Amino acid sequence: MSKPEIGIGLVGSGFMGRCHANAFRSVAGLFDVPAEPRLRVLADASDEQAAQAALSLGFARGTGDWQDLVADESVDIVAITAPNVLHAPIAHAAIAAGKTVYCEKPLSTTAALALEMTEAAEASGIVTLVGFNFLRNPMIKLARDIISSGEIGEVTGFRGRHAENYMADPDVPHSFRTDPQGGGAVADIGSHIISMARYLVGPIARVQADCRTIHRTRPKAPGASERAPVEVDDMTHALLRFNSGVSGSLEANWAATARTMDLSWEISGTKGAMAFTQERMNELQLWSGTQGRSGYTRIESGPAHPPYGQFCPAPGHHLGFNDLKVIEVAELLAAHSGGPACGPDFREAYEVQRTVEAMQASHAEREWVCV
Amino acid sequence: MSKPEIGIGLVGSGFMGRCHANAFRSVAGLFDVPAEPRLRVLADASDEQAAQAALSLGFARGTGDWQDLVADESVDIVAITAPNVLHAPIAHAAIAAGKTVYCEKPLSTTAALALEMTEAAEASGIVTLVGFNFLRNPMIKLARDIISSGEIGEVTGFRGRHAENYMADPDVPHSFRTDPQGGGAVADIGSHIISMARYLVGPIARVQADCRTIHRTRPKAPGASERAPVEVDDMTHALLRFNSGVSGSLEANWAATARTMDLSWEISGTKGAMAFTQERMNELQLWSGTQGRSGYTRIESGPAHPPYGQFCPAPGHHLGFNDLKVIEVAELLAAHSGGPACGPDFREAYEVQRTVEAMQASHAEREWVCV
Amino acid sequence: MSKPEIGIGLVGSGFMGRCHANAFRSVAGLFDVPAEPRLRVLADASDEQAAQAALSLGFARGTGDWQDLVADESVDIVAITAPNVLHAPIAHAAIAAGKTVYCEKPLSTTAALALEMTEAAEASGIVTLVGFNFLRNPMIKLARDIISSGEIGEVTGFRGRHAENYMADPDVPHSFRTDPQGGGAVADIGSHIISMARYLVGPIARVQADCRTIHRTRPKAPGASERAPVEVDDMTHALLRFNSGVSGSLEANWAATARTMDLSWEISGTKGAMAFTQERMNELQLWSGTQGRSGYTRIESGPAHPPYGQFCPAPGHHLGFNDLKVIEVAELLAAHSGGPACGPDFREAYEVQRTVEAMQASHAEREWVCV
Amino acid sequence: MSKPEIGIGLVGSGFMGRCHANAFRSVAGLFDVPAEPRLRVLADASDEQAAQAALSLGFARGTGDWQDLVADESVDIVAITAPNVLHAPIAHAAIAAGKTVYCEKPLSTTAALALEMTEAAEASGIVTLVGFNFLRNPMIKLARDIISSGEIGEVTGFRGRHAENYMADPDVPHSFRTDPQGGGAVADIGSHIISMARYLVGPIARVQADCRTIHRTRPKAPGASERAPVEVDDMTHALLRFNSGVSGSLEANWAATARTMDLSWEISGTKGAMAFTQERMNELQLWSGTQGRSGYTRIESGPAHPPYGQFCPAPGHHLGFNDLKVIEVAELLAAHSGGPACGPDFREAYEVQRTVEAMQASHAEREWVCV
Repeated sequence: MSKPEIGIGLVGSGFMGRCHANAFRSVAGLFDVPAEPRLRVLADASDEQAAQAALSLGFARGTGDWQDLVADESVDIVAITAPNVLHAPIAHAAIAAGKTVYCEKPLSTTAALALEMTEAAEASGIVTLVGFNFLRNPMIKLARDIISSGEIGEVTGFRGRHAENYMADPDVPHSFRTDPQGGGAVADIGSHIISMARYLVGPIARVQADCRTIHRTRPKAPGASERAPVEVDDMTHALLRFNSGVSGSLEANWAATARTMDLSWEISGTKGAMAFTQERMNELQLWSGTQGRSGYTRIESGPAHPPYGQFCPAPGHHLGFNDLKVIEVAELLAAHSGGPACGPDFREAYEVQRTVEAMQASHAEREWVCV
Repeated sequence: MSKPEIGIGLVGSGFMGRCHANAFRSVAGLFDVPAEPRLRVLADASDEQAAQAALSLGFARGTGDWQDLVADESVDIVAITAPNVLHAPIAHAAIAAGKTVYCEKPLSTTAALALEMTEAAEASGIVTLVGFNFLRNPMIKLARDIISSGEIGEVTGFRGRHAENYMADPDVPHSFRTDPQGGGAVADIGSHIISMARYLVGPIARVQADCRTIHRTRPKAPGASERAPVEVDDMTHALLRFNSGVSGSLEANWAATARTMDLSWEISGTKGAMAFTQERMNELQLWSGTQGRSGYTRIESGPAHPPYGQFCPAPGHHLGFNDLKVIEVAELLAAHSGGPACGPDFREAYEVQRTVEAMQASHAEREWVCV
Repeated sequence: MSKPEIGIGLVGSGFMGRCHANAFRSVAGLFDVPAEPRLRVLADASDEQAAQAALSLGFARGTGDWQDLVADESVDIVAITAPNVLHAPIAHAAIAAGKTVYCEKPLSTTAALALEMTEAAEASGIVTLVGFNFLRNPMIKLARDIISSGEIGEVTGFRGRHAENYMADPDVPHSFRTDPQGGGAVADIGSHIISMARYLVGPIARVQADCRTIHRTRPKAPGASERAPVEVDDMTHALLRFNSGVSGSLEANWAATARTMDLSWEISGTKGAMAFTQERMNELQLWSGTQGRSGYTRIESGPAHPPYGQFCPAPGHHLGFNDLKVIEVAELLAAHSGGPACGPDFREAYEVQRTVEAMQASHAEREWVCV
Repeated sequence: MSKPEIGIGLVGSGFMGRCHANAFRSVAGLFDVPAEPRLRVLADASDEQAAQAALSLGFARGTGDWQDLVADESVDIVAITAPNVLHAPIAHAAIAAGKTVYCEKPLSTTAALALEMTEAAEASGIVTLVGFNFLRNPMIKLARDIISSGEIGEVTGFRGRHAENYMADPDVPHSFRTDPQGGGAVADIGSHIISMARYLVGPIARVQADCRTIHRTRPKAPGASERAPVEVDDMTHALLRFNSGVSGSLEANWAATARTMDLSWEISGTKGAMAFTQERMNELQLWSGTQGRSGYTRIESGPAHPPYGQFCPAPGHHLGFNDLKVIEVAELLAAHSGGPACGPDFREAYEVQRTVEAMQASHAEREWVCV
């Protein structure tokens, strides 16, 4: 007996759009999902672009009008990978249509808009999920389980960072990223380490941040010789106090010349500590008093760390980035079908965005700001 | 205009069967393949098992009879992940039917049978591919390109290993792996490092090996209290001489307690050196005289190393094991549709098997054996 | 013809006292020093203790009175490893006697006292050196040379830390470290990473710090059941702005459960970056655009990095902590004999202390404080 | 009350001579030695050279005649760092004079000569020590203790290597190293990994080796344009069988382009495993079943691993290469004064040399050779 089907509508076909499409294609062969996703509609900037992307990514049809997609009755889940400014209107339309909404981060361009989206979604009772994909790593789940178990005692300190080099070159031109609505490095990648800090250590009570623009002008457009001023940060350092009293620090940096994915943290507790970097995403470093030896133990991902076993029954066979997206989609499908709630939902994404904005305000005011 | 379709028949639905199915599902959304794979028939030990697996992996139908699968006209590619003893009969049938054959390693249980399969395939002119998936890693291609470019000079030495721990426990029972036809550690995982040595450094001229059985009895079956003697090696160390004169060593070890995937090597050349381990499959260590500094440089996988870019346009987002299988399938589809030949084909797999048997003979004779 | 002699007087024979003694014993066999150090007088808490330590460390005589040591005409260099509260009186006496003064960090218990010591030393024109020994590492000198050369472009960011675990256990009792005059973690080890930040990136203009006491009481004394409140920090996180405009962050933490010596930093520049940790003190990670490859290169210490060659003519033979002290002493002897000035001198140590106090003030005021 | 004195005579003042001198100078301030070493006589190739070296290294006098040194009644310990061909005559003279003999490795140029030296020393009952300094590392002692304790079960496999790059350049000229009496890479550095294998796993029963000369000619002398053939190996790979039945492999390679000190090994046991490399000499990797987690734990050197604590009371402060020599000398002084025997003595060094020669014979015969 075959499984029920669930119709997927995808808005956008760039980097993340392709990841979504791949995840929806793969998930049913890897996870015991309650329903079989069907790639029904892909919306893009024009009909031609959409038709082309639909063909390449395996969707039944394309459309240049996302409203057409939202209105399509065969679409059950609306996946939003469109430019950030479009997240709000698309999500509101999808919420109004009662669809499950799966949105890339950031939820919106401001926390205020994100809150509106959150309240609308909560009022309608729909399932929401925001794509903070790095949280899906079995090693991150393991880290949270270790904290919950008390194995490292009470958490005392957090030190996190998300540093990459994609804006290190001063001749990388302006784009949505450097638009004040984009929010700069602290919003673009700072949000990842904020979401991970919240996932592992809990809510952040107050922040004190120092935002800095390294390259004060950039070409107006790709290849343009004319340059325009940059109004967003390239690098932000922040002090953190969590609700629990834990103190810590955080860096967001998109001009970190030697780094391509230093999404990393160390968490100290009274009885142990853990360290992680996305540069070696299949490893978690753990020291706990129960070991009786000095020095971190390098835990390798394996079937002992669900849902790794869905991908491979043997340890030592690494997961990759795209697998994280498959895990995300598996949890989404389960939640859509009445299974356990999956997170981060819109509200959690709003909280991340509030934290980003608190950092920006703190920088402007040059003082601590409560989130 | 949609792409032509290509029918997939898969024999077996275990570890590797699932990997194949996932790869065929995913590939068209990631690579610009010449034809769209359709999952048509899955064969397994019984009709029930096959029907169940077909449903779970997304095949149109299941069958308990692999001959039914091979005979199905809608099947263009026969993918073999059945027990090793079945590789030969299935492959011969598929060759006779003019299908493309995609077979898991080892090609067969003996080099003699593998040679028969190779000669049959070559006589019929069909496309063949054997699943030495670790070769698909962009970092391994990069290593070969670096050697070809002369950047590390003339290769002088090779030191390789494939060590895992899945048979380290003496109570792991007998299975196909410990059957003399299975060939022991040297065949099961030694073949991976042999294939990689050949891929990077070229053919091996002669070997001198020392095979050892660490656990001399194992339970007759899972949970059995009765034990039977083990006739295959748990660990083999070997000296190598390549056709080029390069000397080296190799270890195959399935009882390496601390290791889950130490498929690793160091290659020295007159002007530089490289090191790799599958434990960190997204990294290649390179030192070359052109650097002017001591110490290895850690090259991270990224779009500069095709086909990484098919999975992600940004560096720092790791590939995982299943992605290697997708790359394998993409190359297979291209070759099937008249594109460039893909390897390792049956003949290459036969050469690997000959090398394994030369090691076993060398151990028995206690002397160097020419391959 | 033998070298002139230079008389050494050492106050204190604990951890650092032993290091000093060893360095003075070893240096003349390793470096071409202008004068041969002679271990003349060792002062300690009592005559008995001093006599015992003098015998064990090879000094000609011991004394329970440091003033006796300072007054001894055969003593040319006064090395101070006494408790911090004694640094000022001993130094002032030694300055008055025209001796060269070699003092362990911190220079004194407050910046105000440190300034008095600095001014007295400068007025008298004596040679001073403060034992920030980690700066002596050839890899740290290399890092500074690389920055000066422009190889990593203009420095943009600094992220530093000194984390250890020696106070992680809440039952570690009160001692001079937890005395408010001791200054807590930010003074005890924060001073090391501050001195390194200044050495590599230059003066720090302003700071914003968050100091936290994790264990709010500790036993009054070793083995005591009675506990007293702790008034100093266990962990401090701080934001930094350097005079050059570079922004960064810093952590001092003596309750970092998994760490024994995480004195580490990453420095990003517009054209490259470097990373270092004292946990692997013989390695420097460098990425620079001139490499043409992604990823850090691991530079190993060797004769190319003076004064490594004084210890060993071949690379790959590591320096250890005590060797750093030998280097320090070699530079001190050269400066004492009229050679190039060696740093960090009293003024530099005062600047470090001012920065520590600015952090403490910033925490108290909850705002940025200019140094 | 001061300690008794012990007179040191040192033959040779090169790389190792300087290490010896430094160790004898430092040891009494670090270890509680039974006697105070006094640097009495230094012998070198000529009186002038010796006088100069004596001054620089702190010896009371120099001599161009090592027989003069051996005959000096104030010399209790004769330390031999002269060219290998002189080891035998100097040692025999020192043995005849009843001195303690401390000789650099290799003990002599042939196993036969080494045996004569061993038998002479044993007949006279003197204390001997051969400078396999890497064995002095507290991490190596820890490894042996872990094996003895049974924590990793019964040892099953050994994989070792000593690879450096000092002969990688084909224009490095002939020297004592490439003299057939020098023995090539297998003797020069292979002996280090052989001694470590014996120290950790026990005697080696038989070997099968493959020696290879990469650079078949070298300049006759530094700067010479004329080249002469090379008759020794640059690289040797060998199979090993230990007396205990353990099997393994070993590589000696002085043309390993990227390596400066890859003296490394992995030892697998039935219940755990360990790995070590001299490149990170202050770390030992351990996995044992008692940990309950996958992956190696990185044990850092510290006071828990004697005699680390003699150098520093706190963990995280690394030992360096020269410290290993100090440990060696401390053990020698204790043995000289009637304390516990220290190893490796002449007999052990002879056994190492026998193993080297068995490898060379095995290569020549192309078969297994019993040691």
